[in-house]
Amino acid sequence: MKLTGQSFLGAERGSRDGASFKAVNPHTGEELLPLYFSANPAEIEQAAKLANEAFNSYSQTNGKTRAAFLRRIADGFEAHRQELAERAHLETALPMPRLLGEVGRTAGQLRMFADVVEEGSWVQARVDPALPDRQPLPRADIRSMLRPLGPVVVFGASNFPLAFSVAGCDTASALAAGCPVIVKAHPAHPGTSELAARLLVDAVAAEGFHPGVFSMVFDAGVEAGKALITHPLVRAVAFTGSLRAGRTLMDLAAARQNPIPCFTEMSSGNPVFILPGALRREPAALAQSLFGSFTLGAGQFCTKPGIVLVPDTPEAAIFFDELRALVDKAQPFALLTAGIAHEYTRAASARAAQIPLVAQAHAADISSACAASARLFNVPFEQFLATPALADEIFGPNTLLVSCDNAQDFVRAATSLDGHLTATLLGDEEDLAANRELIQILEQKVGRLIFNGFPTGVEVTHAMVHGGPYPATSDPRFTSVGSMAIYRFARPVCFQGFPQSLLPPALHDSNPLGIARLRDGKPEGA
Amino acid sequence: MKLTGQSFLGAERGSRDGASFKAVNPHTGEELLPLYFSANPAEIEQAAKLANEAFNSYSQTNGKTRAAFLRRIADGFEAHRQELAERAHLETALPMPRLLGEVGRTAGQLRMFADVVEEGSWVQARVDPALPDRQPLPRADIRSMLRPLGPVVVFGASNFPLAFSVAGCDTASALAAGCPVIVKAHPAHPGTSELAARLLVDAVAAEGFHPGVFSMVFDAGVEAGKALITHPLVRAVAFTGSLRAGRTLMDLAAARQNPIPCFTEMSSGNPVFILPGALRREPAALAQSLFGSFTLGAGQFCTKPGIVLVPDTPEAAIFFDELRALVDKAQPFALLTAGIAHEYTRAASARAAQIPLVAQAHAADISSACAASARLFNVPFEQFLATPALADEIFGPNTLLVSCDNAQDFVRAATSLDGHLTATLLGDEEDLAANRELIQILEQKVGRLIFNGFPTGVEVTHAMVHGGPYPATSDPRFTSVGSMAIYRFARPVCFQGFPQSLLPPALHDSNPLGIARLRDGKPEGA
Repeated sequence: MKLTGQSFLGAERGSRDGASFKAVNPHTGEELLPLYFSANPAEIEQAAKLANEAFNSYSQTNGKTRAAFLRRIADGFEAHRQELAERAHLETALPMPRLLGEVGRTAGQLRMFADVVEEGSWVQARVDPALPDRQPLPRADIRSMLRPLGPVVVFGASNFPLAFSVAGCDTASALAAGCPVIVKAHPAHPGTSELAARLLVDAVAAEGFHPGVFSMVFDAGVEAGKALITHPLVRAVAFTGSLRAGRTLMDLAAARQNPIPCFTEMSSGNPVFILPGALRREPAALAQSLFGSFTLGAGQFCTKPGIVLVPDTPEAAIFFDELRALVDKAQPFALLTAGIAHEYTRAASARAAQIPLVAQAHAADISSACAASARLFNVPFEQFLATPALADEIFGPNTLLVSCDNAQDFVRAATSLDGHLTATLLGDEEDLAANRELIQILEQKVGRLIFNGFPTGVEVTHAMVHGGPYPATSDPRFTSVGSMAIYRFARPVCFQGFPQSLLPPALHDSNPLGIARLRDGKPEGA
Repeated sequence: MKLTGQSFLGAERGSRDGASFKAVNPHTGEELLPLYFSANPAEIEQAAKLANEAFNSYSQTNGKTRAAFLRRIADGFEAHRQELAERAHLETALPMPRLLGEVGRTAGQLRMFADVVEEGSWVQARVDPALPDRQPLPRADIRSMLRPLGPVVVFGASNFPLAFSVAGCDTASALAAGCPVIVKAHPAHPGTSELAARLLVDAVAAEGFHPGVFSMVFDAGVEAGKALITHPLVRAVAFTGSLRAGRTLMDLAAARQNPIPCFTEMSSGNPVFILPGALRREPAALAQSLFGSFTLGAGQFCTKPGIVLVPDTPEAAIFFDELRALVDKAQPFALLTAGIAHEYTRAASARAAQIPLVAQAHAADISSACAASARLFNVPFEQFLATPALADEIFGPNTLLVSCDNAQDFVRAATSLDGHLTATLLGDEEDLAANRELIQILEQKVGRLIFNGFPTGVEVTHAMVHGGPYPATSDPRFTSVGSMAIYRFARPVCFQGFPQSLLPPALHDSNPLGIARLRDGKPEGA
């Protein structure tokens, strides 16, 4: 597939006269061809208008039609697996096996949503039949189901160039719900984005849909994103990235003449509570697993464990020593961009000025501006509690050990937490049973509670919640991973007194789709 | 029950030293005793802290326990039916039969939510069992369910002093979800509010709950509301009222350090499309029904039909003449407050300066500052389309007839609409079938589509949607009437790798609650 560097405005390609930029190989610092061209305001307008036009027909397609479309995109990803992973490897320095796996995950997500909309129960159909004989007044027939919101803007994420980017979970769930999508490509992997967008655009054409179902714009700066999020025809926004950028988007969405739902997944310390039983078992192995988790993807996972609370038990020293040794001898990492690497070094140095940096890997042989070395911090509990900034995420391969005295420290720490994506408890069942209060408090703070696992490696399933109270996300009522992600892009619409012939099939008396519904509030057939 | 005029801070009563105010009888203009006292900042703080403390235990109560609580409140309302309605009649001038009915509706809503949480399936439990043999890596056990958000602030609405006020649908659904509630009482019916709050506080005590489960504050101005919505411990807000006030609350919620969900139900023109078949049947009867709908509750319903599109057919003249006659001879109305009456007269006069006021009732014998007379406006279609302000709601007994030439006008009008709570189509099935495009466009604009009915008289059922795109509400993904209203106050929480003994019962393998769940995305047992 030949790369041209132009935006996709439905079936057309954008101009080549906007500000240009190139991808950079984080391993070498070398610039990659081709040149990429920023979309201009007229092109943003064109993408929004196309999406709005497409919504009229695309929103009326049925689940089977949308499932075929999503599977066609998945087929395209699988057919171009090697090409996608290779370009992503050049642009992100993430290892090839991980990227090949990410292509598979991206296709798998598309197929999961295809299954969900083909089966059809996701629309939460409810039927309250008419009660013509009710006293003092009859009741009309009332039925409702979920319908798509309208055009959705998706911001590609830097850290998953496939699974959370152009055709990632945000795009897949919005398309599944019946919403056209406009992607703002992440400038750190424009080539990967162009390859992915071509597969989407081809699938739109092959299905015979209105071309406005999918567009993608490039931008060297932030203007295209701002123009999209404030465009009157845009109805929702999805984003994964930093707290600062995410909050800016939230504020723009909330300040619109007509505010719109804005889903930003931003910042999380993913606290880990090591209970005594976990240290009694195999403290060195625990340190190895934790090291693997906080350095996975060079520590650039949303769910990286960044805060680890360790009790003062005899085995804690073994755990500490092993972790220090692992960090000391860690290989250097190439982060996604020079900007991320610079911010990592800055934030880590600022933290090291506040609290002990107990281990840092050598970084002598690193030349690229994207290079970074693993770091391990340690702080006593009371200082942690007195310094709220220590709970802030530092994106990159580092973590903070908090030395605690007793279980009561854990409860106080949990109470002091803001929102996070996850909280993890490591220990035996006795530990858990002895910490019910801790669990109840953590439940108020996070979207996912993990027992004896690590938060990295988010499964794409039906029960997954990748969300949590602010600042983890903008809205704790939704998830950006797993099949429930579709609920971000739909809203209930009620039909009162409609004849069968004018109702959507999901609401017909005969339930021709065979979906799970509620009838007068009870599961149908029950 | 003796009225004292003090706020309820859990089980305690507030001070009597804040700014004071009295209710006013809209019929007579007479002030009603007792004096009501504004809550001071320390009392707001107390209410928020109590609610936050109460959340720890109240959020862990089970559905049966909360159902008993909600039914106890309903019992209290029914036992004090006459007393509640009589005080509400004095404070609102709404007729006694309507208010006695509203007590019943309030109790009915509480019982509906009791049934929902006792049955238990509302938590949307999902179970994705572990796959220990999966390649290349095993999958952990992943389960999720809805859990309550935290303390909720409810603003009482002026136009339903019982069903959308202290113990109305917002409070009932938040308590059902497991959230403590702090009500900001509407100053137009403080006595009704105090009676209702006493019933709630007594029910909290009788169930042995933490007293912070319910508080209610009075305020002569807007400071208490602002302090509540910006309080760090408050997790969500529900409001029904004007666009201006609602938008202010939205902006305050969005500007917080930690933004929170804010549900405001604000403004709706509730457009009615009269299709040719409806006029062919009984044009005079149609006029009578429409008149009944837009003057119901003195035109102070959220769903009042404020925009009526009428085709140019031979029977239209009969419809127009009958409607003019009905408005001309309408009795004067007493609106809820002098402020509402003043704003009604101001807005109606401004509109009359723009377009023809074709009928207005006599108001000669009205003395109260709350008095208002019915009004009927008429505008040609092209002028309607060219004047967006004509789609704005004027709260009170009036409506606007838009004279259209043909069905294409209807499509253009629908396309031009902002968000509304409802849209209504009147006609025969042939009309509907000939207007599929109109239906598809309207579906994008409203929460509820009505065929051959009127939008006033919102049923409290499981399929009801009382919501819609901005400016009808702040968030089109939710409803403030019907059992789905509970979903505003809950969020999914995921448990990964948890032993059975530490999981909530809704997620146990054996499904001890017998609720509808998804297992690997499929209805359990299917």
